[in-house]
Amino acid sequence: MEHELKEFIKMCDEAIKKEDFDTLMNYYTDDAVLVVKPGMIARGKEEIKKAFIAIAKYFNNSLMPTQGEMIILEAGDTALVLSQTLINSDKTDSDYSMDRRSTYVFKKNPQGEWLCAIDNSYGTELISNKDI
Amino acid sequence: MEHELKEFIKMCDEAIKKEDFDTLMNYYTDDAVLVVKPGMIARGKEEIKKAFIAIAKYFNNSLMPTQGEMIILEAGDTALVLSQTLINSDKTDSDYSMDRRSTYVFKKNPQGEWLCAIDNSYGTELISNKDI
Repeated sequence: MEHELKEFIKMCDEAIKKEDFDTLMNYYTDDAVLVVKPGMIARGKEEIKKAFIAIAKYFNNSLMPTQGEMIILEAGDTALVLSQTLINSDKTDSDYSMDRRSTYVFKKNPQGEWLCAIDNSYGTELISNKDI
Repeated sequence: MEHELKEFIKMCDEAIKKEDFDTLMNYYTDDAVLVVKPGMIARGKEEIKKAFIAIAKYFNNSLMPTQGEMIILEAGDTALVLSQTLINSDKTDSDYSMDRRSTYVFKKNPQGEWLCAIDNSYGTELISNKDI
């Protein structure tokens, strides 16, 4: 049986593909953060929804994220998911990688449901090009 | 002023350097997980402490982790830290990278103190060598 978070992330990807952002927002915590692109963060459902609408438009409304290899590190009500995220769209000139190593943090709410708290599809790429 | 998590991680690195693992364990949640090496996980303070003792020995009791560039993504009581982790020791033949892109997840406890819940110094490297 697949880990429940794997199924959950599939539902998120499906909602993104269908551009059903109201359903998608049910999958985030109220204070969730989304890394829209390096240096740009959306905070809270309202900003995250707006960001997803802009992202969908950027990808010619043809965005289809899927996940490849995935590692789930679970510590009680918190989980870190490391995932190969493949981004398909009919846009051929994206400035951003379409094959990413994402880092997602999920939290279990009191009802035992996982919700996304931190959504960073850029993973450690956010630091890898910086010099110390 | 530096982010409080940056200071906190400095204290963790200092405790590792001093091999003060009892103090170090105060910085972890009870159900924390540590990625000891790819494919090996320690769960809970007892296992994590044992793992740190073994890691210290592996590095000839000369382990000195420090952090370089760091990005902190904070969502309420949860934070994902992406960090360049530099591992120094007098061991010259380590099987593991000494310059890593770590992913750490921290949680704030009811007293408002950050604790480490997920400690993965291998970051997305855990998946990057696998084929989908």
